Amino acid sequence: MSEAAWDSTILIGVDGGGTGTRIAVSRSGSASIRLAEGPASALSLGVANAWDVVAGLCAQALDTSIHAMPWSRCVMVAGMAGAHHLPWREQFLRDAPAMQRLRVETDAFTTLAGAHAGRPGAMIALGTGSVGEAMRADGNRVQVGGYGFPAGDEAGGAWIGLRASRHVQQAFDARVTCDAFAQALAARMPIDSRDALIAWLGRAQARDYARLAPTVFAFGTHPVATAILDEAVDQVRMMVDALDRHGDLPIALCGGVGAALRSRVSGSWVRRLVDPESDAAHGALVLAREMSRDERVRA
Amino acid sequence: MSEAAWDSTILIGVDGGGTGTRIAVSRSGSASIRLAEGPASALSLGVANAWDVVAGLCAQALDTSIHAMPWSRCVMVAGMAGAHHLPWREQFLRDAPAMQRLRVETDAFTTLAGAHAGRPGAMIALGTGSVGEAMRADGNRVQVGGYGFPAGDEAGGAWIGLRASRHVQQAFDARVTCDAFAQALAARMPIDSRDALIAWLGRAQARDYARLAPTVFAFGTHPVATAILDEAVDQVRMMVDALDRHGDLPIALCGGVGAALRSRVSGSWVRRLVDPESDAAHGALVLAREMSRDERVRA
Repeated sequence: MSEAAWDSTILIGVDGGGTGTRIAVSRSGSASIRLAEGPASALSLGVANAWDVVAGLCAQALDTSIHAMPWSRCVMVAGMAGAHHLPWREQFLRDAPAMQRLRVETDAFTTLAGAHAGRPGAMIALGTGSVGEAMRADGNRVQVGGYGFPAGDEAGGAWIGLRASRHVQQAFDARVTCDAFAQALAARMPIDSRDALIAWLGRAQARDYARLAPTVFAFGTHPVATAILDEAVDQVRMMVDALDRHGDLPIALCGGVGAALRSRVSGSWVRRLVDPESDAAHGALVLAREMSRDERVRA
Repeated sequence: MSEAAWDSTILIGVDGGGTGTRIAVSRSGSASIRLAEGPASALSLGVANAWDVVAGLCAQALDTSIHAMPWSRCVMVAGMAGAHHLPWREQFLRDAPAMQRLRVETDAFTTLAGAHAGRPGAMIALGTGSVGEAMRADGNRVQVGGYGFPAGDEAGGAWIGLRASRHVQQAFDARVTCDAFAQALAARMPIDSRDALIAWLGRAQARDYARLAPTVFAFGTHPVATAILDEAVDQVRMMVDALDRHGDLPIALCGGVGAALRSRVSGSWVRRLVDPESDAAHGALVLAREMSRDERVRA
């Protein structure tokens, strides 16, 4: 597909996260989708960086140079981590190339759109952090969580890892036995002494704690791991209840931690769980397609 | 008491913390003690700052100018927050004025010395953070905790406040009812909207969370506050058990949070609790007096 083939409107969905960025591109009226992946573009890392990454990946997906991007024919929905912070969001809009249409959403909303293909539903995104969002049948949107690390982000990877790090702390000063779980967590950090642990904890960011989460799942039957993961499920349940009081929306648990937690969910709400249909980049593309269609209907 | 009266050895105990500094000064052979208080001197805030504060307070306590300090006649024990970090500790020793004798300890150890007047015992210091230390009858020292915020510092003020902030988060997005406890915590921050809460949480440091702890104690019968404070007592109990496996040492709960938690302790270990005899500055002075006496015996 050469650049010339993109003579109709170009639809772009962006998932701009704190770890990586994914772009889904399609022509209006076409089902074929091109994808590109690159480094982080969360707005907290700088709006200039976000546009460098996003524009570069758009050019890559369209197989053109960044200077030859046909921006005037583009309709973009960008789901950006950090878009709830208004100054960053406004700067991102100001610095944008001149497009046919640009809409900026939080990555939570595009994750929701991807999970239920734009239909009503609820989702809890569980990666390094956590956030929940729902769109009800009447179109109303509700959000829950998203308060960030360390006070919020319940049941996210960093939340799980921070709790697990306490088992290592307590093992290293003999509050608890230094068992295989504590040793596996220490190896993952990696540290081998109390002083090294103090130094690691002094430097650790949310993403460092999140890297401990797979070890917690691997030791899922250890009493401490079980307690952490059971509490994580309880926290997800509270978020779901706040998003969907009547209990009638489908619920998708998104992100790596969401997928891993799913098998631990029990009780009445397990039957409302659905697999996410697609990811946030595809969700943003669904929204871009809807937006483009609405424009044409109105025109 | 003029400067001339200080012709014998001058004993100085320093409690250098992250919030403030306290100095206790005495002559060898005298029971009279002079005190001075000033700003923070934790080594994490810079060793030059620590010496500025400590030297200034020594001069103040001795009623002399900082340039006229009779350092050559001083025996100092400095219990400094951050002294467990060896590069800071070594820099503090290198930058010291030439004294008759200088010993640097962690503030945890001088708190212990103050709590039990230098005799065997265990203490849990609960301020913004938490740390436990014991000296056994054979002179062996054991430490527990002290891993810092947010992963460690169990039962400290910041640990309590961080947990309480979750009640506000959950109240502000309707996971729980926005009750009087949530409102009191929000007023203490102070914030009045979900966006303001997100901004507050984005900026909050350990000391900001610690400022919420008094509100948690004030609402101590609220189910969420009760759960937090009960867990804090459990955490303190675990630290005590690690410090004193045989259960035969007196235990002092030190710091503002320690004093507030004491009435919530129940069970068999309540009879081992004792009031701290004095604070960390007096503890450091006790150690300075012992050190000075040992020197003379050896001489």
